[in-house]
Amino acid sequence: MTKKHTIILQPSGSRGQIEEGMSVRSAARELGVEIESICAENATCGKCMVLIEEGRFEKYNIDSRRENVSPVSTEEAAYFARRPKLLKDKGWEVGQVRLSCQCKIHGDVLVNVPEESRGNKQIIRKSATEREIEVKPSVRKYLVTMTPPNLERPIADWERLAKGLETSMALVRGADEKLPRWYELGIDYQCLRTLSATLRAAKWNVTVSVWQDKEVIEVQAGYVEDSYGAAVDIGSTTVALYLCNLRTGELLAAESEMNPQIVYGEDVMSRIQYAIENPDGLEKLHKAIISTLNKLLKQAAHEAKIKMSEILEMVLVGNSTMHHVLLNLHPKDLGLAPFVPAIHKSMDVKARELGIHINPSGNIHVLPTIASFVGADTSAMIVAEEPHKQDENWLLIDVGTNAELILGNRKRLVCTSTPTGPALEGAHVEYGMRAAPGAIERVHIDEKTLEPRYKIVGEDEWNTGKAKGICGSAIIDAVAELFRAGIVDSRGKFKQGLESRRIRKGESGWEYVIAWAEETSIGRDIPMTQQDVRQIQLAKAALFTAARTLLKRSGLESPDKIILAGGFGSYIDKEKAMLIGLIPDCELDKVYAVGNAAGDGARIALLNVEKRNEIDGVTRKVERFELPTDPEFQNQFMLATSFPHMSEPFPHIAHLIPNRKADPMAKNFMK
Amino acid sequence: MTKKHTIILQPSGSRGQIEEGMSVRSAARELGVEIESICAENATCGKCMVLIEEGRFEKYNIDSRRENVSPVSTEEAAYFARRPKLLKDKGWEVGQVRLSCQCKIHGDVLVNVPEESRGNKQIIRKSATEREIEVKPSVRKYLVTMTPPNLERPIADWERLAKGLETSMALVRGADEKLPRWYELGIDYQCLRTLSATLRAAKWNVTVSVWQDKEVIEVQAGYVEDSYGAAVDIGSTTVALYLCNLRTGELLAAESEMNPQIVYGEDVMSRIQYAIENPDGLEKLHKAIISTLNKLLKQAAHEAKIKMSEILEMVLVGNSTMHHVLLNLHPKDLGLAPFVPAIHKSMDVKARELGIHINPSGNIHVLPTIASFVGADTSAMIVAEEPHKQDENWLLIDVGTNAELILGNRKRLVCTSTPTGPALEGAHVEYGMRAAPGAIERVHIDEKTLEPRYKIVGEDEWNTGKAKGICGSAIIDAVAELFRAGIVDSRGKFKQGLESRRIRKGESGWEYVIAWAEETSIGRDIPMTQQDVRQIQLAKAALFTAARTLLKRSGLESPDKIILAGGFGSYIDKEKAMLIGLIPDCELDKVYAVGNAAGDGARIALLNVEKRNEIDGVTRKVERFELPTDPEFQNQFMLATSFPHMSEPFPHIAHLIPNRKADPMAKNFMK
Repeated sequence: MTKKHTIILQPSGSRGQIEEGMSVRSAARELGVEIESICAENATCGKCMVLIEEGRFEKYNIDSRRENVSPVSTEEAAYFARRPKLLKDKGWEVGQVRLSCQCKIHGDVLVNVPEESRGNKQIIRKSATEREIEVKPSVRKYLVTMTPPNLERPIADWERLAKGLETSMALVRGADEKLPRWYELGIDYQCLRTLSATLRAAKWNVTVSVWQDKEVIEVQAGYVEDSYGAAVDIGSTTVALYLCNLRTGELLAAESEMNPQIVYGEDVMSRIQYAIENPDGLEKLHKAIISTLNKLLKQAAHEAKIKMSEILEMVLVGNSTMHHVLLNLHPKDLGLAPFVPAIHKSMDVKARELGIHINPSGNIHVLPTIASFVGADTSAMIVAEEPHKQDENWLLIDVGTNAELILGNRKRLVCTSTPTGPALEGAHVEYGMRAAPGAIERVHIDEKTLEPRYKIVGEDEWNTGKAKGICGSAIIDAVAELFRAGIVDSRGKFKQGLESRRIRKGESGWEYVIAWAEETSIGRDIPMTQQDVRQIQLAKAALFTAARTLLKRSGLESPDKIILAGGFGSYIDKEKAMLIGLIPDCELDKVYAVGNAAGDGARIALLNVEKRNEIDGVTRKVERFELPTDPEFQNQFMLATSFPHMSEPFPHIAHLIPNRKADPMAKNFMK
Repeated sequence: MTKKHTIILQPSGSRGQIEEGMSVRSAARELGVEIESICAENATCGKCMVLIEEGRFEKYNIDSRRENVSPVSTEEAAYFARRPKLLKDKGWEVGQVRLSCQCKIHGDVLVNVPEESRGNKQIIRKSATEREIEVKPSVRKYLVTMTPPNLERPIADWERLAKGLETSMALVRGADEKLPRWYELGIDYQCLRTLSATLRAAKWNVTVSVWQDKEVIEVQAGYVEDSYGAAVDIGSTTVALYLCNLRTGELLAAESEMNPQIVYGEDVMSRIQYAIENPDGLEKLHKAIISTLNKLLKQAAHEAKIKMSEILEMVLVGNSTMHHVLLNLHPKDLGLAPFVPAIHKSMDVKARELGIHINPSGNIHVLPTIASFVGADTSAMIVAEEPHKQDENWLLIDVGTNAELILGNRKRLVCTSTPTGPALEGAHVEYGMRAAPGAIERVHIDEKTLEPRYKIVGEDEWNTGKAKGICGSAIIDAVAELFRAGIVDSRGKFKQGLESRRIRKGESGWEYVIAWAEETSIGRDIPMTQQDVRQIQLAKAALFTAARTLLKRSGLESPDKIILAGGFGSYIDKEKAMLIGLIPDCELDKVYAVGNAAGDGARIALLNVEKRNEIDGVTRKVERFELPTDPEFQNQFMLATSFPHMSEPFPHIAHLIPNRKADPMAKNFMK
């Protein structure tokens, strides 16, 4: 029987009995701890550094000694000799720090695996849930050193590389993982074209980038540590690009730009229309987005000081129209009943096919679409928030000019979408504007005096600064406050006969002045008009009816949690949104805003390839409901225009609802 | 227990007990007889027609009656009603002829499956072995009829098609065959781009072309029966293209053209040199061959009256240099020691990546290379001749300016190559020319009078017509006859003092006049010179040494069969080739010429996808020997320049060898 030794791995605390002579890296693998490596255990990459701790560890009942592992090898010594600064910075000495691929176990040891050596790195994503992302990129790099060909073994370049690569992959990944036999490995045709020259220039010592463990997409001379990827969220208005290091997960640059398609139409329907009406319409829309992507890539590469050809993959998300236009698929049928996309499932298209200037052998991965108006951005939101892994029923809402809603848990997910119009984003509201300096972002109205207080973007104090307009969050506030203060009734109508100079008959009907001309930078009174209130009523009725339909179809009274995605959700006052009936009733501390969940999801899918299969499977099972086909839709929609929704109980904001008995519709509400 | 009936299928004679109610087509499948179908058993394609024979069949002890199958269905009746001409031509009546997918078994029947309905059609290839090719193309067509999308089921176009396609594939292929689940099917990106428009224009009734059962590469409106493929052999001198129907295997057009790369160099080495010395050398060579392929494709499509976009696949073979240049891979390392190709294994590259004008979603399949000078043409020769399936040891030789040799059987195959120079093809021989009208193609010399007789291409009689030069076969003849008649000795030297006006001292030394000036169209004597004999000696020594080396490495005395491929092999006199020691000794009736085996192999690989995996596996195992690395090579080569090879016994042509004892080298020969 072979002799065995006790090995303890910190910080995980994994422990086990390991055979005499096994390397620390292999031992760690046996105990389920991944240690990085890229050089096929050649003592050249240094990714697998560990610390051999000395001393008596009572807890584990072992004496750990440096002499219990093999002496520092010549290769290790040479590796560390080239890195005096690293040793100094870390305060490590050679013998204490070892390359775990070289260091063999001959006695009991306690080994500390520093953060940088740990495999499957975790990066923290800032979000409501502070979830960790495991870094498992689709592209991995392997160092391959080959014997040059000679007359006795004149095997071709590709086969020589593939054979060497398989050995490297097995050494790096562990032989137990199922890897392709070398002749099942492929190489992208464009990558093959330069292979022979690269191998010779590199003296048969190259770093190979392999996509999905099956296709070689890049061969670089010598030892190259990092490769890069980009995650992109193509919004109808804004295109955001995140450049990441695919090994560490680190975010290196974030760039954004207006979507250039805006000149062809503000919203998706008008762009679809443009593509239908103009013979070269699709081509123009497609070229516009491709050139913007290339511009953002160039900026990001410059910022991160890398070459664009080092970017080996891109993950793209966007609504179904953006998805189609990106892929040069005609969006016509997205806009015409029965509203079907060309394709649901995720796709990988070579960058060169789309003219995107990352490495031409790299892939553009596009997340799946769920329906005509529930696109790859919603898929990305699911990736980011993971409702499909919950026991609780979550309601995810991405609010824009169109709102997408997902409801459910691990057993069932249902989705729908509804146009909400631009009012919630401050457009089509008389003094509406984006959340920029000068925008009123909060409004409060005193119930007694009916006088307002407001806060302007960029000001620390309330009622200071010069107002320029009202942004989305303040529009919600204002409507909620008008209702709470009893200025408008539950049907959204301005009440007659209230004593306030703020309430007056304006050009287009009744209005309430939030800021007087002298408090503004535009020299005009900024009111909230009857028309504005009506806009919000329609938008919130659409959103509410959509949510209510999903709840009903799922047999639920209310969601356990509401997640608001998109910029809009981050700024609104949850309580006021609930008061006007924008979102269904729910415990207030169970309502979260998560920011750009689509962008987060794109980044997660870029960094963790397993999420891609997962979301393909999840979206295949999501049930879609088209609201206009719901017979009760119109009825529900009308009811939902009131404050709050008249046929629903609202326990969590009931205390805010004014003077119910005086309200003509209160009996509806009470039932 | 279910009732069973006896069913007999003719002409195969397959018989078995079949469950009541099963369709004839399903029953045939159970008995191992494939019946064609393309319409997913919708009674629309008519591919599955069978004849129900009536009568008492003593041999099988059954009474076969038309009433023993289900009555003719409305769909069947409609199908046949549209085809009165077919019924008339064949002399069939409805009820006798049935669509086997519709016709259910309710009693004993004898069914005749006509040739056109049989699955996996066989086509006969004209060759030494008259082998049958089974037609199993990589691209198959399936008719898919879908329910149009509606608001209740707004599933995307691709998913709708894939689901319908899987059903069709299972119905056509039989549910027992392992088929991809619909969401594992893929669609080529460029094909997806036009999918939505095609489906709608076709009213959701389309024919789908699927590559390798995994990727959709074409979607056509309505029911389309045929698709097409091209097989191409790129020779250094000639490019030959064969256009085939992928369903029937039928050859529709054969086109050929000079290889345009000839302007950049006559042989592969000079083209490699050109690519090395000129920065745009490879680009020029590559573009030249691509434009010739496009020209040949256009001609062939025109000839067959089809559109180029209906050609859905191309299989290409050629020597390693032609292979590399076609794929735009630099051939530099093919020409420099240690002579390695960029890749051995077969490849599939999208036609659009290479600018080849078949359907842009179609694939270009390139057969594997074996070594730097043993290319994809040799792989194709193996496909055509199948030495790897033999018990006997076969020697395959493809003779050109370079000769490739394969030796072995099912257990082991070895290969090598050798430059033979242009002499065997009539170049670099003083009056050498191609086998065109006016070329002397046969020569005989009387041993007594030393007078020649000759035959000219295009003439039926010997010694008639006007000679213009000597082609390859006559050069072999002439050298053999000079030796047999005792005019040159076994070292190839003109003997002194022979009495003949034909033998004279010319400008470059001794020569033998085959045709006098007045017998020619060029007005000059056509002699065979000492120099010409030397050229042939060097060529045949190289070829012989290569063959001898392979035999020795395989521990064999002589091959059981010799197969000569290429145009050259088809015209030479086997006995004379053996006499001068061009090929090793072998029974004469075991020496075959098979013509363009590479072109045949390309066509077989086009029509039968299984041959592709097979040849990849075979070539991976072929052992390669590089002659210069063989220590005995120079020694053997020198010995092999004599007639016949001096250290070898030649039992099969011994009777032709003149006056051995008088020969100064005879003692060498006798040992």
